[in-house]
Amino acid sequence: MGAFLPRRCVGQLCLRTTDSGRGCTLSIRSSSGAAMVIDQPAVSLEISLEVGRQVSRMKKSIGAVPGLAVIHVGEKKRYDNDYDFTCSLVGIKAFPVRLAEDSSEEEVLNCVSRFNDDPRVHGILLHFPLPWHMDEHKVLSAVSIEKDVDGFHPVNIGRLAMRGREPLFVPRAPKGCIELLHRYNLEIKGKRAVVIGRDHTFDMPAALLLQREDATVTIIDSTTKNPEEITRQADILISAIGQANMVRGSWIKPGAVIINVGTSLLKDPDALHGYRVVGDICYEEVCKVASAIKPVAAGGVGTITLSLLLSNTLTSAKRFHNFI
Amino acid sequence: MGAFLPRRCVGQLCLRTTDSGRGCTLSIRSSSGAAMVIDQPAVSLEISLEVGRQVSRMKKSIGAVPGLAVIHVGEKKRYDNDYDFTCSLVGIKAFPVRLAEDSSEEEVLNCVSRFNDDPRVHGILLHFPLPWHMDEHKVLSAVSIEKDVDGFHPVNIGRLAMRGREPLFVPRAPKGCIELLHRYNLEIKGKRAVVIGRDHTFDMPAALLLQREDATVTIIDSTTKNPEEITRQADILISAIGQANMVRGSWIKPGAVIINVGTSLLKDPDALHGYRVVGDICYEEVCKVASAIKPVAAGGVGTITLSLLLSNTLTSAKRFHNFI
Repeated sequence: MGAFLPRRCVGQLCLRTTDSGRGCTLSIRSSSGAAMVIDQPAVSLEISLEVGRQVSRMKKSIGAVPGLAVIHVGEKKRYDNDYDFTCSLVGIKAFPVRLAEDSSEEEVLNCVSRFNDDPRVHGILLHFPLPWHMDEHKVLSAVSIEKDVDGFHPVNIGRLAMRGREPLFVPRAPKGCIELLHRYNLEIKGKRAVVIGRDHTFDMPAALLLQREDATVTIIDSTTKNPEEITRQADILISAIGQANMVRGSWIKPGAVIINVGTSLLKDPDALHGYRVVGDICYEEVCKVASAIKPVAAGGVGTITLSLLLSNTLTSAKRFHNFI
Repeated sequence: MGAFLPRRCVGQLCLRTTDSGRGCTLSIRSSSGAAMVIDQPAVSLEISLEVGRQVSRMKKSIGAVPGLAVIHVGEKKRYDNDYDFTCSLVGIKAFPVRLAEDSSEEEVLNCVSRFNDDPRVHGILLHFPLPWHMDEHKVLSAVSIEKDVDGFHPVNIGRLAMRGREPLFVPRAPKGCIELLHRYNLEIKGKRAVVIGRDHTFDMPAALLLQREDATVTIIDSTTKNPEEITRQADILISAIGQANMVRGSWIKPGAVIINVGTSLLKDPDALHGYRVVGDICYEEVCKVASAIKPVAAGGVGTITLSLLLSNTLTSAKRFHNFI
């Protein structure tokens, strides 16, 4: 399969402060019949700015700020500094904890328990995967559902799966996709939506969220025969399979909205580290057929999941302090 | 829309005792190109017989039998006697409780709590809906997940929604549909499956169960445009919408497997009570196109859900007593 470099063949995105001065709106202008780019970093920035303003208001009003505990077990560095830095930017207090790889499960559970009881902490983020000798489900289930800002507690997932039950939080990567659609005023209700996935921590919540907004949803995975037949019916296509350029232009319904989540590393001797990041969506082809597209070039869904972590922590703190 | 009376235009179903004498197998023979009938009452009977044999073995071996508590609040009679009677048939001890309509939520919670602590009780069934002054989610969440034989505890639903997490029980009506497919050796893996629903307590678990078996699933509801375009792609179609004869022959992919769950009452002065029960599937038309069909005439999914309640209670008791 050929290698395609995403490029902006796109519409214009405008980020404007609203009249009230409290938020921003995104508007898009199409150009020359090509797909409009859904600019995720711009949306992430918008969300973070909103959070920052509200944290500031909370601090002035009641003298409290949201607190986020980030628990990391083991050696690998994964976003820790990003979390601390980003929290500090918007005024959220971070409580980073780093435990040794050979910590016992009990130590991690004790750590979770302390944060559950700490009124300064409104969100608890566990870095996964945990070391192999720990029961991830047990540790995850120990997090108070009121502080489960990652949305993976079985009760929050269970509530998400049943309409009429409201989860306190939902997983951030799929929520990020829905947030992009909302912020660009791209209608979901009554649309055919297809999620291509292989990680059920992403595709299932994504499908459940789309369903809650009255889309008719199909999940495609590696067992699906002729996936292109199904994607061609999609008004909204979210791809998170991690197969470079798998989704070609011929897979797309004209005018569809495309969210590229999945990424792969392709060898490229000209790239900085010998590899470059490529999306599931063959951008060069798809941008000529789709009406709007979130390309991988605009940054995975990493930045928006970070912004939503801040937003979820704020929501939790507002709930705790009964602050509107 | 015309009214159609289901009739058997079908294959032959054989219920045979297995060589070990411990179970039965169902086999089907097609006839004359028409759809084979999936005979749900036969499957229900098979499940109940299996449960009865295993309860008997448990009693002989460890002197204990499974126990099922059925909590009913209010005046309406709904299957209570069926439960007691069917439990007694297979040797399960029933613990029926009937509370007054004006009972407090606390009284119901106390009742649940007593059964949670009672080692003779392995399953707790709450009759829904509860009176309006009670918080159903709160009461349901109070049931121990080990005794949640109805599978609606948020944790069990949450586990069902995430592959890699195993629910202790799953909701019985959707499980009944999957059980029918299994018992008739109708393949699910790699198939396109469509669930037509409007009650998310049915269609969502049904979709999740099909997905766990590697089907590619789409849920259709009242917001779906042109549902017939989607049903025509289905290798497996489960309908639980409750719209008389909605699914016509032209909606069906030739050779598809059809499970009719939804029923409606149509006025019929010639019928015993002035009404007759009609399914979502226009049987007369669909049986000419499908390869297998579970018609409404074979009894909703009521009988199989009752059998699965017994089966779940047995499973719970075996888990509790560590009895294999």
